[in-house]
Amino acid sequence: MRRILSRENLVEQMKRVEAALARALEEAGIAPRGTAESVQAALATVSAEEVYETEKRETGHDVAALVFLAARRGDEKARQWIHYGATSNDIVDTAWALVLRDALALLKDRLRGVISKLSALASETRDVVMAGRTHGQHAVPVTLGFKLANYVYELARSYERLCGVEKRLVRAKIGGATGTMAAWGGRGLEVRHAAASILGLEPHPITTQVAPRDGHAELSAALAILASQLDRLAVEVRELSRPEIGELWEDRGGAVGSSAMPQKANPVTAERVSGLARAARSLVTGFLENIVLWHERDLSNSSFERFAMPHLLLILDQMLLDTHALLERLRYSKERMTRNLELTGHTVLTEALMNMLIERGLGREEAYRLAREAARKALSEGKMLHEAAGEVPGIRSLLDPRELQRLKPENYLGNARELVDEALAYADKALNQC
Amino acid sequence: MRRILSRENLVEQMKRVEAALARALEEAGIAPRGTAESVQAALATVSAEEVYETEKRETGHDVAALVFLAARRGDEKARQWIHYGATSNDIVDTAWALVLRDALALLKDRLRGVISKLSALASETRDVVMAGRTHGQHAVPVTLGFKLANYVYELARSYERLCGVEKRLVRAKIGGATGTMAAWGGRGLEVRHAAASILGLEPHPITTQVAPRDGHAELSAALAILASQLDRLAVEVRELSRPEIGELWEDRGGAVGSSAMPQKANPVTAERVSGLARAARSLVTGFLENIVLWHERDLSNSSFERFAMPHLLLILDQMLLDTHALLERLRYSKERMTRNLELTGHTVLTEALMNMLIERGLGREEAYRLAREAARKALSEGKMLHEAAGEVPGIRSLLDPRELQRLKPENYLGNARELVDEALAYADKALNQC
Amino acid sequence: MRRILSRENLVEQMKRVEAALARALEEAGIAPRGTAESVQAALATVSAEEVYETEKRETGHDVAALVFLAARRGDEKARQWIHYGATSNDIVDTAWALVLRDALALLKDRLRGVISKLSALASETRDVVMAGRTHGQHAVPVTLGFKLANYVYELARSYERLCGVEKRLVRAKIGGATGTMAAWGGRGLEVRHAAASILGLEPHPITTQVAPRDGHAELSAALAILASQLDRLAVEVRELSRPEIGELWEDRGGAVGSSAMPQKANPVTAERVSGLARAARSLVTGFLENIVLWHERDLSNSSFERFAMPHLLLILDQMLLDTHALLERLRYSKERMTRNLELTGHTVLTEALMNMLIERGLGREEAYRLAREAARKALSEGKMLHEAAGEVPGIRSLLDPRELQRLKPENYLGNARELVDEALAYADKALNQC
Amino acid sequence: MRRILSRENLVEQMKRVEAALARALEEAGIAPRGTAESVQAALATVSAEEVYETEKRETGHDVAALVFLAARRGDEKARQWIHYGATSNDIVDTAWALVLRDALALLKDRLRGVISKLSALASETRDVVMAGRTHGQHAVPVTLGFKLANYVYELARSYERLCGVEKRLVRAKIGGATGTMAAWGGRGLEVRHAAASILGLEPHPITTQVAPRDGHAELSAALAILASQLDRLAVEVRELSRPEIGELWEDRGGAVGSSAMPQKANPVTAERVSGLARAARSLVTGFLENIVLWHERDLSNSSFERFAMPHLLLILDQMLLDTHALLERLRYSKERMTRNLELTGHTVLTEALMNMLIERGLGREEAYRLAREAARKALSEGKMLHEAAGEVPGIRSLLDPRELQRLKPENYLGNARELVDEALAYADKALNQC
Repeated sequence: MRRILSRENLVEQMKRVEAALARALEEAGIAPRGTAESVQAALATVSAEEVYETEKRETGHDVAALVFLAARRGDEKARQWIHYGATSNDIVDTAWALVLRDALALLKDRLRGVISKLSALASETRDVVMAGRTHGQHAVPVTLGFKLANYVYELARSYERLCGVEKRLVRAKIGGATGTMAAWGGRGLEVRHAAASILGLEPHPITTQVAPRDGHAELSAALAILASQLDRLAVEVRELSRPEIGELWEDRGGAVGSSAMPQKANPVTAERVSGLARAARSLVTGFLENIVLWHERDLSNSSFERFAMPHLLLILDQMLLDTHALLERLRYSKERMTRNLELTGHTVLTEALMNMLIERGLGREEAYRLAREAARKALSEGKMLHEAAGEVPGIRSLLDPRELQRLKPENYLGNARELVDEALAYADKALNQC
Repeated sequence: MRRILSRENLVEQMKRVEAALARALEEAGIAPRGTAESVQAALATVSAEEVYETEKRETGHDVAALVFLAARRGDEKARQWIHYGATSNDIVDTAWALVLRDALALLKDRLRGVISKLSALASETRDVVMAGRTHGQHAVPVTLGFKLANYVYELARSYERLCGVEKRLVRAKIGGATGTMAAWGGRGLEVRHAAASILGLEPHPITTQVAPRDGHAELSAALAILASQLDRLAVEVRELSRPEIGELWEDRGGAVGSSAMPQKANPVTAERVSGLARAARSLVTGFLENIVLWHERDLSNSSFERFAMPHLLLILDQMLLDTHALLERLRYSKERMTRNLELTGHTVLTEALMNMLIERGLGREEAYRLAREAARKALSEGKMLHEAAGEVPGIRSLLDPRELQRLKPENYLGNARELVDEALAYADKALNQC
Repeated sequence: MRRILSRENLVEQMKRVEAALARALEEAGIAPRGTAESVQAALATVSAEEVYETEKRETGHDVAALVFLAARRGDEKARQWIHYGATSNDIVDTAWALVLRDALALLKDRLRGVISKLSALASETRDVVMAGRTHGQHAVPVTLGFKLANYVYELARSYERLCGVEKRLVRAKIGGATGTMAAWGGRGLEVRHAAASILGLEPHPITTQVAPRDGHAELSAALAILASQLDRLAVEVRELSRPEIGELWEDRGGAVGSSAMPQKANPVTAERVSGLARAARSLVTGFLENIVLWHERDLSNSSFERFAMPHLLLILDQMLLDTHALLERLRYSKERMTRNLELTGHTVLTEALMNMLIERGLGREEAYRLAREAARKALSEGKMLHEAAGEVPGIRSLLDPRELQRLKPENYLGNARELVDEALAYADKALNQC
Repeated sequence: MRRILSRENLVEQMKRVEAALARALEEAGIAPRGTAESVQAALATVSAEEVYETEKRETGHDVAALVFLAARRGDEKARQWIHYGATSNDIVDTAWALVLRDALALLKDRLRGVISKLSALASETRDVVMAGRTHGQHAVPVTLGFKLANYVYELARSYERLCGVEKRLVRAKIGGATGTMAAWGGRGLEVRHAAASILGLEPHPITTQVAPRDGHAELSAALAILASQLDRLAVEVRELSRPEIGELWEDRGGAVGSSAMPQKANPVTAERVSGLARAARSLVTGFLENIVLWHERDLSNSSFERFAMPHLLLILDQMLLDTHALLERLRYSKERMTRNLELTGHTVLTEALMNMLIERGLGREEAYRLAREAARKALSEGKMLHEAAGEVPGIRSLLDPRELQRLKPENYLGNARELVDEALAYADKALNQC
């Protein structure tokens, strides 16, 4: 990702765009035969380093520097036709489209890797029973696989979003100064079509001087959402690795704890993911404001984008790498899961008990009352729910001990297995979408 | 929109969901025949007002209040099977999916209206020449139609985004307490399928206790982007209605000016649009944070959503209504446009002049130098560019006065007309997407 | 707070400002004697309801409506001099300064109440030993009182910030149309001084047409910070009330659990606080954007402020009330605290052990190595640290069992008691600051 | 600023803190005489480069690396007592307090420079009459000096805020692992007092493992507010340098325009300021979220702060430098100001006319009606207001032509001159506050 976002690569992509434009001008019959070759040769002589030096020393602008250097070194044709009829943003926005295409390809690849790792884990742990938790409290049993499959589904939705973003954001902007293609004497549409085809991009059907910034904002939002989902997964791990819970943790081998407290195995990878998510969420605001450019454009988008776009992409790259590493090192303890379920006396099965009573013909309210009584008894007397239930007269008369014995977490998982399959199937489909 | 978002309507939708669930339980063979009818009858007796009163007085929860009231008034079957195996969020999230479906339909409708009005205006004014402006400065000529067609394209992209959001957000959440469907004894998938079909919704393939919140965040981002685009259009009008520019303005008839300055016709509608956009942008942050729920859910999303979701939808509704009204009342002055172009001595044609020189065989740098000299001359001596150019020796020797006379804004519009068509065609296609 | 922010009260405050202005005009010798009385009488006839009706029906503006109605009903003097030389924002911004003064007084009062309740709890529990937690892991012992005293300090800092905000925000804006006081014929400074004095406000020393919006942004930031601190406290409670931890919880008496899981005692108050904090954080962005008004003002701040300011104040009011209620109902379990410390084998004392070894002359690294070995032994063999340490040769040779027995959490609290005092003293001082 | 924020300087400051701590331990009688000297000598051998290398290779933590290297190279005393009883955040947070003290000093210095430059300009141009603008429309006359003095006042308020931030943020955090000072055997308060004194800092009276993050959030908010104020000034310049207005502009000498439009003198400095303000506004959100750390701390603040804090400070540094440069190069045209006032026929004096009529005894409504009629006449017939007014019978009967001649912008400036003085005096006082 650093390479894709490097200044060197940006100049490379700008050269590609200038070359494609020259070829397009030749194909459209605006520039004479041989122009494309001449321009390409001239561009080949210019290094990124020279561009940035010239920008600093003379032109104050990278595209101007590139054109200036290439023109000076090229033959007459190059000198005459390079950048003909174009505005800087034809080059910059289109070069960035190429950069973003590569960056998105990488992010999608990494996301695919995370989803695939999560899917494998979810399959593997589909029968590992644990407490489902709402409000931080024990609710109804789930399996670890079911829990993870929810993340599979959620992340697959992010993948879909990236496909949508790509369609709108990764487009050539070729239209000249204020987007009217005025300099190409009525053959602008051909120039645009040819140049975009060479680069393998769809063009924007219309633009001002710049590509519309809603696409950038959409990208930032899609990435901030993805970041928040990874944050949610990181919080899951951070919470469940508390010493009092101990169900999940990151196995960091012999990593050094803090200087004062060597015994600790802090969930640092997950904490970094949570922290970086804040950065991703923060940056959305600026991208939204950037949409509101004046008329055919102003430059106020530029300083923010130069700062925020590379950072945002690097942050997501890091987060996906971290999450992948975290999943590789994720360990779980069936024993702690079992013990924690016992801690609340299997009262996660109170709903199950209530429904057993309803099936025996009790009304909803009465069933609720009795099940609740059993749950309270279990909690206050430190018994398992099935024992406590057996001591509640209204229940005992309807359900015999053998039936009550069925009140086990592993018997109350509903369609958790099939739902894991559904989540994985959904993800499979989503990942093939783009 | 107020009606769709009213508390009364929310209860109506919750009743629809409870009824659909009852029917689904009957279809799946969990509840006996006649259950759906009984439940429906029981629900019909309950009013929204009663629900909110009972919530306040007894249950502290709207779904609990609804179920409580319906169960008390229903027959035995209703009492026994209403809400069977469901958790409150099966009802709330699915009812909200129905509300959001209607709210999105309304917003899409209004957006369609704005795009259509803009398209008509763009067609009508495709030949109205004006200064293209970058950095607030005159750049290269455009037409009013071309300017507006850019907004058509940009807003059409927002329409596409709303389609994507809808696919992910407007889904039934039916899965019981922690999403495992445990209470439905293995027939949960059938229950979900039946209930969702009755409501005309796709279900989420898997959920925790609640529908995943990335969909809500995506909606907020899509609406904040749309709001920022409308803000951009509003700023366009606000700027161009400055007395020094006077090219566009909102014709508010005999509206009263400010108390101290009765002469003023302030662009208040456009200013309100700009202001509301800030509200829309602001709310995204909270929706992003809401994604990070603990485990199978916590309740921290609730207080923010109750505040922010209705406001966000109302804000966008108002912004689209305002923008439509603004477009209805939008007036333009060809005369001011012409005069403003003259103000900068037609130097918006400097690029045109430069390209004429390049076509005559001058190298890029020399052509640039000469064109710039002419432009400076025009600006400093208060002449039109073609006059000034005629006084620059290096130009005069290559271009005769008749050729220079062609340096008129209306002759330098490139493919502006066709680009308007392309933008409108793009929008047409986008609006048929969902 | 609802009363303070009501539309009725806003009109009341606007009437106060108009009355003060009239008196000031009279005092400055601009309006004739008796003006103030006439204007006051005229204002007294107008009700808030009438103002809003007239705004809707005729003027489109609340101040205009008020002036219109009062002028119509007043005597000749009132008709002539009411609102003389003022612009709407003289009235609106100054009336809002009065509203904000009251709203801030209420918030400060509630915050004072929360700090005071927390201080009492901190004093009471200064010797209740529990695990200090970093990264969710056990670190070094603290006391509950010490933990809470940190919140006392942090919240006291918020109180200080509110004092700073008040100084800059609660000021009269009296300057006429663009702030030059042009209509008051050179006696504007006297008018401003007199009117502000009557209202008990400092005036802004200079303004455009409106009071500068940095004050509003500062308020929103100060409140978002306060909200985030309350969120931090809420998260503390939510985490420590997990069934596996059980150290703190909100005692909600016989509150009904969720419909499906009656056994649960969800930390709903704390969760609501966390949720509302997101709303407070979200709104800052819009207030920041509002600073960037054009020239002497534009109206784009208005629609956002009308929506966001009352909501923000109500949100904080609710959060402070909720936090106070939460603190009233907060319970703690010494037994669980003790048990949780044992769970990690008193390894929270590893640092203590290391320092004992350093005091015996070991180098830092060697001491660290030995202490760590003991901690690992304790954790892996399920012993208390002092037992495990006694089995590590390098330690046993330096520290005898009796010395090791001193490795108890209650013996390793450093200056926790005095620090509680310092925090409370700091808060005392801060609360007397304004 | 880059130097202050460099990694090298951070290590320097960490060394200062470790040295101060060693001296404090010696002073408190915990460490033997000579410890401070030994530790200082050991620290002196370690370079920043080595620290970062060791962090990467071995410790994964910069403080650990520093301590490790110094201990290895120091004598026995250094080995034993360096970092004794401290936790990494004692060093990191306190070193950052020193960095932030310097960074704030620099920012305050630059802000002082901007305010001082603005004050000089405001004094110089206090009599340069121009249109006051509200809603982008001409409102009532102001002077350029008056306009600028508003910025002086607004920026002075930011200076005050920075003073408040400094008091809360620039504090030593010295308290050991979870803030209880447990390792210092009851002499923690003395250690803290001594170490903080040596560094010239106030200590936090209590902390968890880390300094409370509300201070960081407050800094980010104060800087985002300042950034938005600079943005407002930048927008002022960008707007008034439109070719149709031409009242203010940045004189960039012979700077190259855009490649396609050489005639243009784009307000690029001001646009960069506007763009960077978006970055500053964006980052606040993350700092607010960072407040919500778990218990005695988690690490999730770290990755965001490392990214955002240096960027935020650099952004503000750049913005202040840019604004200063912009002010140096700011030019204004009295002629355009005069012409623009004439463009709206001096209707900026409509209020003046109305008040003249009220002074002659007309009621407010009648005066308003007549003044408005004159203004409409002026605008529609292209006359100056005093001419048009002379043709309105109701006015002519009350005001003779000579009186109407007084309707000149320069005669309707109220107390603009004195208000400039008040703003400058306020700023003077604020700048001496810290």
